[in-house]
Amino acid sequence: MVDENIEKVSIPSLRRLPLYYHYMKILKKRKVDYVSSTKIAEKMNLTPIQVRKDLSITGVKGRARVGFNIKDALEKIEEFMGWKDKKDGILVGCGDLGSALLGYNNFKNYGFEIVAGFDVDEKITGTEIHGKRIFPIDRMENLCKRLHIKVGIICVPSKSAQKVAERMIDSGIEAIWNFAPAALEIPNDIALHQEDMAASLTILFKKHRKNR
Amino acid sequence: MVDENIEKVSIPSLRRLPLYYHYMKILKKRKVDYVSSTKIAEKMNLTPIQVRKDLSITGVKGRARVGFNIKDALEKIEEFMGWKDKKDGILVGCGDLGSALLGYNNFKNYGFEIVAGFDVDEKITGTEIHGKRIFPIDRMENLCKRLHIKVGIICVPSKSAQKVAERMIDSGIEAIWNFAPAALEIPNDIALHQEDMAASLTILFKKHRKNR
Repeated sequence: MVDENIEKVSIPSLRRLPLYYHYMKILKKRKVDYVSSTKIAEKMNLTPIQVRKDLSITGVKGRARVGFNIKDALEKIEEFMGWKDKKDGILVGCGDLGSALLGYNNFKNYGFEIVAGFDVDEKITGTEIHGKRIFPIDRMENLCKRLHIKVGIICVPSKSAQKVAERMIDSGIEAIWNFAPAALEIPNDIALHQEDMAASLTILFKKHRKNR
Repeated sequence: MVDENIEKVSIPSLRRLPLYYHYMKILKKRKVDYVSSTKIAEKMNLTPIQVRKDLSITGVKGRARVGFNIKDALEKIEEFMGWKDKKDGILVGCGDLGSALLGYNNFKNYGFEIVAGFDVDEKITGTEIHGKRIFPIDRMENLCKRLHIKVGIICVPSKSAQKVAERMIDSGIEAIWNFAPAALEIPNDIALHQEDMAASLTILFKKHRKNR
């Protein structure tokens, strides 16, 4: 349930690949065709070896003295990351954070779309947020099963997170992205990614302290 | 600039500690005094050795057959994670995601408070979001210097992120939490934590694929 090794690819590598991708996208816009691992490494404060190692996972290979073909590298990263496979998801808990995610346009670049939101609050069910319909939570099972939705995002308060996760699993959800700061008890065959703002903050603060 | 080793503590450990913390908080509420590493490991789908190793970083030591004293463990985790040190921050880009973070009450449990928001949109500057004043971006340098603010959160669109980061650094910001999907070019002595939704999604999808 916790980030360790997935298909033998390290989580830090998975986190770095989108950064290389964003950077190469910028270069491509500037009509640059090739970039060296040294250049990327400098930009990201890494070693060129690390950059080459990370990129090699996706099948991208650089050429001596020329570097990586940017167009090819972008495609290989997209493919490896699974951004080309279309996936639909639902979101439960349409407060501020939930609304922000419903309106996060960037997801579509990664093949992901939130098709509906669910909430218990009758003031918002029946409305639309960023063009997404918000349904009462009782409708979740039916909708997920009918549309074969496998991805669920939890944005409810901590105390409701476990119950929502269980309802999602009953609805056929197989991958849960949990933004509630709560440890979920779920079966091993359900994929879980815990988004932990506390951990992120702490990592930032620890880096900051180390720099001073 | 990328998550690797901070003070020799691994990022995965730093990400797990808040989960142990949340779980022990629940147990404490239920008037439980002790918990074993086996129990925590079961709950989190980890090995007891991993749990003991992670907790030992914070100075928490379990006792044979009794386990960890929950009250003591909670305090040690809080201290280690730096959640007891009060830190103020500012946020730039008060759209949906920025607004969600301005209203994220949970930050205060980690000693963090966003004291003000900044934006370029005159429709929202001068207003309040979740009780936080929103200022025009021109006011950032003055306010940050005056209040000795060292932490800045970037929630602007990708294309503006680099410019905002540079302005933050000019304003005395030393730690940047970047939610824009853009690779920032910043000096080595500035702490950076890149929040990458694409990476999170991909990690979830890779776990999901592995389970099927």
